[in-house]
Amino acid sequence: MAPALEAQGGETLSQNSFLNSVGDVTNRSKVTVIGSGNWGSVASKLIASNTLRLSNFHDEVRMWVYEETLPSGEKLTDVINQTNENVKYLPGIKLGKNVVADPDLENAVRDANMLVFVTPHQFMEGICKRIAGKIRADAEAISLVKGMEVKMEGPCMISTLISHELGINCSVLMGANIANEIAVEKFSEATVGYRQNREAAERWVHLFYTPYFIVTAVQDVEGVELCGTLKNVVAIAAGFVDGLEMGNNTKAAIMRLGLREMKAFSKLLFPSVKDSTFFESCGVADLITTCLGGRNRKVAEAYAKNGGKRSFDELEVEMLQGQKLQGVSTAREVYEVLSHRGWLELFPLFSTVHEISSGLLPPSAIVEYSEKSPRSF
Amino acid sequence: MAPALEAQGGETLSQNSFLNSVGDVTNRSKVTVIGSGNWGSVASKLIASNTLRLSNFHDEVRMWVYEETLPSGEKLTDVINQTNENVKYLPGIKLGKNVVADPDLENAVRDANMLVFVTPHQFMEGICKRIAGKIRADAEAISLVKGMEVKMEGPCMISTLISHELGINCSVLMGANIANEIAVEKFSEATVGYRQNREAAERWVHLFYTPYFIVTAVQDVEGVELCGTLKNVVAIAAGFVDGLEMGNNTKAAIMRLGLREMKAFSKLLFPSVKDSTFFESCGVADLITTCLGGRNRKVAEAYAKNGGKRSFDELEVEMLQGQKLQGVSTAREVYEVLSHRGWLELFPLFSTVHEISSGLLPPSAIVEYSEKSPRSF
Repeated sequence: MAPALEAQGGETLSQNSFLNSVGDVTNRSKVTVIGSGNWGSVASKLIASNTLRLSNFHDEVRMWVYEETLPSGEKLTDVINQTNENVKYLPGIKLGKNVVADPDLENAVRDANMLVFVTPHQFMEGICKRIAGKIRADAEAISLVKGMEVKMEGPCMISTLISHELGINCSVLMGANIANEIAVEKFSEATVGYRQNREAAERWVHLFYTPYFIVTAVQDVEGVELCGTLKNVVAIAAGFVDGLEMGNNTKAAIMRLGLREMKAFSKLLFPSVKDSTFFESCGVADLITTCLGGRNRKVAEAYAKNGGKRSFDELEVEMLQGQKLQGVSTAREVYEVLSHRGWLELFPLFSTVHEISSGLLPPSAIVEYSEKSPRSF
Repeated sequence: MAPALEAQGGETLSQNSFLNSVGDVTNRSKVTVIGSGNWGSVASKLIASNTLRLSNFHDEVRMWVYEETLPSGEKLTDVINQTNENVKYLPGIKLGKNVVADPDLENAVRDANMLVFVTPHQFMEGICKRIAGKIRADAEAISLVKGMEVKMEGPCMISTLISHELGINCSVLMGANIANEIAVEKFSEATVGYRQNREAAERWVHLFYTPYFIVTAVQDVEGVELCGTLKNVVAIAAGFVDGLEMGNNTKAAIMRLGLREMKAFSKLLFPSVKDSTFFESCGVADLITTCLGGRNRKVAEAYAKNGGKRSFDELEVEMLQGQKLQGVSTAREVYEVLSHRGWLELFPLFSTVHEISSGLLPPSAIVEYSEKSPRSF
């Protein structure tokens, strides 16, 4: 099955300008992945398979690893470089011999002109400050980081943070991407959102694209990045529906209303956001994955089963072994933006999710409509 | 939670022109439901609660019932009229005292100006021929019938069949509507698709709308009706993914690609079809419901688990107790349209579903992309 329709929606990119310019060694792109967790390791594997295959990239992919000492006493970076395996965060998967783990952040980024950021979002500001002024002037960045902070005046996008702190262009890659499924090469898709630089987007697509990982580019950084965060609020709502055992019908309706609010919220904040972005992998597909599985859905289900009597904090500690829940805090941050701007009534699902998760309303409120008849214009 | 965003997408309809004109007895609308199966009975229940509440409708809702003799020896219509319950197709649910079962089709439709069609699609042509010329000149129709025939020259829409055979305007109502879940008043949504007559659409929305059944109208009959049929082809693909145990990631990707092809196919056949229709309940929500549960998904899962070695006909007989599978025949009909028009390559998912279900390809082909790199324009 060939992805023929990609050409009708999100753009697919011409290979002429890029691939046909057989890169001589001096101007080959050098890639560094900043982050080596579960998703960061899978991203390195995808990238490493392409830098070997495509002449426009240096074979070597440098991966910055936050150094840890393993129970064996060995350094994580040493083990990765000996075994080509991230034994702690992606055991059993070969990353490729051309992936080089580097514990020194500044050394890892020095020579790269393609920087791939894939760390927990709370570390991003510190990382940017450490490498500012120490990267190549012609460097381009892409962020795989989900869950930026939504502040009262609006969301603080990670791509914006990177651009401001480092003074470079930044794209994003989001989608229905469960790292462990992509690691074993199960078919999936992703969306690259770019601002203006189409050629850079083209390079990113070629860097990530494999026959089992189909990447499409759209000129809509904010739309793609907001999808990656707002879906977690909808996943909380979907979890409530599961906990209330209301069935697939109600769940599908809540997911649809959530997608509408994701679209409307994004477009109110950034008028440049495109409707079509929500039909891409970062939109409807990631929403489906997150509302079927995912930790936000799971904990919200437990919250509803307990009738809201046990707090999210308590359930998170009990159920997630130290992993953090993003949906609840994002819902609170979105709620602050909505009330700050007087938009609460326009976003009944987003605001109800926060009112339930903060204990103001019972879980059943997720489907309690105040309307007794169709609304007038 | 109020459906505030409806006003931003699918239209919500002003009540002024309709509800504020308190209908005097002579011009109250009279409703007849043609069909009394599972969904037809639930539709009658929804409608009956509104005709009692709203002064613009006659209280009585006539429901044509294909007469059957029950094991007890009683006639089904007699039992429905005595108990207000369709003991055979919706046991345990009160339809409302104002629902009158009528075994005589021509008598049932004679006085009605609002005709609700909800029968298996293979009976529609015969029913239309029987009542042609025997209905009110001012009658309006709405079709809840899913799964029209797709012929080589294009799909034969049920709404078109009704309009042609009866010479009246016909709207459609589709959505994520599992009858048994709506019967117990679980929250869900539906979409009314109308052609030109906005006032008629307004009447249909008010006739079906309840606080747990939110109805939105869009001026796009073909888009709404095609969603109701094409989703079953995508459900077959989703079932293959389930049978191959490829996980939520791959399933979400396949559902997204399916939604894209539903949209592209509908727009190629009917340029008037709107993208926004696919964000409505009839689009993304019905697709989700159908790909999570549903008989098409279920049998396709079994087909893939058996590596395609047992035919769909065989599995259908074994698994569906006489119910029929629509997705496989729709996939074949869509395939005929695609090959007839030279569009096969534009619709890899639709064509692959047929090639798998007809035994030409193994189930795993659903995720075997022929592309080795991004496509050029």
